[in-house]
Amino acid sequence: MVSHTVPLEGEFSLSDLPGGAGRLDVACRAANDAFLVSHGIRKEVALHLVVGDQITISLWGLRLRRLNPDERSTGALFREALRAGRDLPVGEERPSTPGITVRRIGLAGLLDDLRTAGSAPVVLDEGGDPLRTEPIPEQPAFILSDHQNFTPAEHTLLAGLPRVSVGPRVLQGHQCITLVHNELDLREAG
Amino acid sequence: MVSHTVPLEGEFSLSDLPGGAGRLDVACRAANDAFLVSHGIRKEVALHLVVGDQITISLWGLRLRRLNPDERSTGALFREALRAGRDLPVGEERPSTPGITVRRIGLAGLLDDLRTAGSAPVVLDEGGDPLRTEPIPEQPAFILSDHQNFTPAEHTLLAGLPRVSVGPRVLQGHQCITLVHNELDLREAG
Repeated sequence: MVSHTVPLEGEFSLSDLPGGAGRLDVACRAANDAFLVSHGIRKEVALHLVVGDQITISLWGLRLRRLNPDERSTGALFREALRAGRDLPVGEERPSTPGITVRRIGLAGLLDDLRTAGSAPVVLDEGGDPLRTEPIPEQPAFILSDHQNFTPAEHTLLAGLPRVSVGPRVLQGHQCITLVHNELDLREAG
Repeated sequence: MVSHTVPLEGEFSLSDLPGGAGRLDVACRAANDAFLVSHGIRKEVALHLVVGDQITISLWGLRLRRLNPDERSTGALFREALRAGRDLPVGEERPSTPGITVRRIGLAGLLDDLRTAGSAPVVLDEGGDPLRTEPIPEQPAFILSDHQNFTPAEHTLLAGLPRVSVGPRVLQGHQCITLVHNELDLREAG
């Protein structure tokens, strides 16, 4: 998920996620729906939050701890990661809370890393092909934006990638994540 | 949505929705996904939250105001409604904030009201028939539980109703709402 308005320094109150934290609530809901099912966690998932095209916070399902469903506690995890990423040299990585790491890379660096790790990027886009009937790569990495549209620079980076749409209405990011998971769950179950 | 642990008196801090507010965060996410799409609201929807089988808080899409995506501000709307419902006589209704009313009825009373209004209840249940292939009534009222299972008394009230399942994994309530909306959106779009 590409985040455009979260303050990089991690200086905000957890009681004002939509305001002072620059709509960090959007990313918190994305984390809930990326990982949490009823009374369980999807261990095979990773979520990367690109903040201000400078810092990427990564949550790794296999090692992730302390992720609760509510926005406020997830906001605290993201805040801790942002603070852990201060003064981090370009390209370097630092651990935050268990299962969360932070790197000083933007969207271009993340796309490089994903491809190196064997993932195939797919853009979630209202103008894309219908999710239910599209072929999905073996190891997909779905790219989506927060409450704002991709910037022109981001569009350039994402040009030429396959695009899928979840349905006829333009939905919130976390809702798209839920719909993608459900589609993959159903395909896996046959 | 049937809520089992939210304190009826509405005495809790908005900074502790999962704790002192008895998992009110579950209902807040349900409200988000029942009504909010990206930059818009589903006006044709109503959400009824049955609290402690005594109070039903109803959100009406057509008249609803002040619903924001984040949990904390939605928690404030629910808290205001719970407080408006104090000392409310059995069966009576009282307005809270714009587009939100509160009645002193439980699940049985709500089911009666829904049927009187022409709605056909459908239970969201992991053991139900697959959502994607099931016929859905013209004016459906989907019934789901919060983070806890339906009680035996609730099961009795819901016995004999059609049941649908969203997929092979047991999901959180708000995720089920997103999946049901998407299915209805796709059917409507043909």
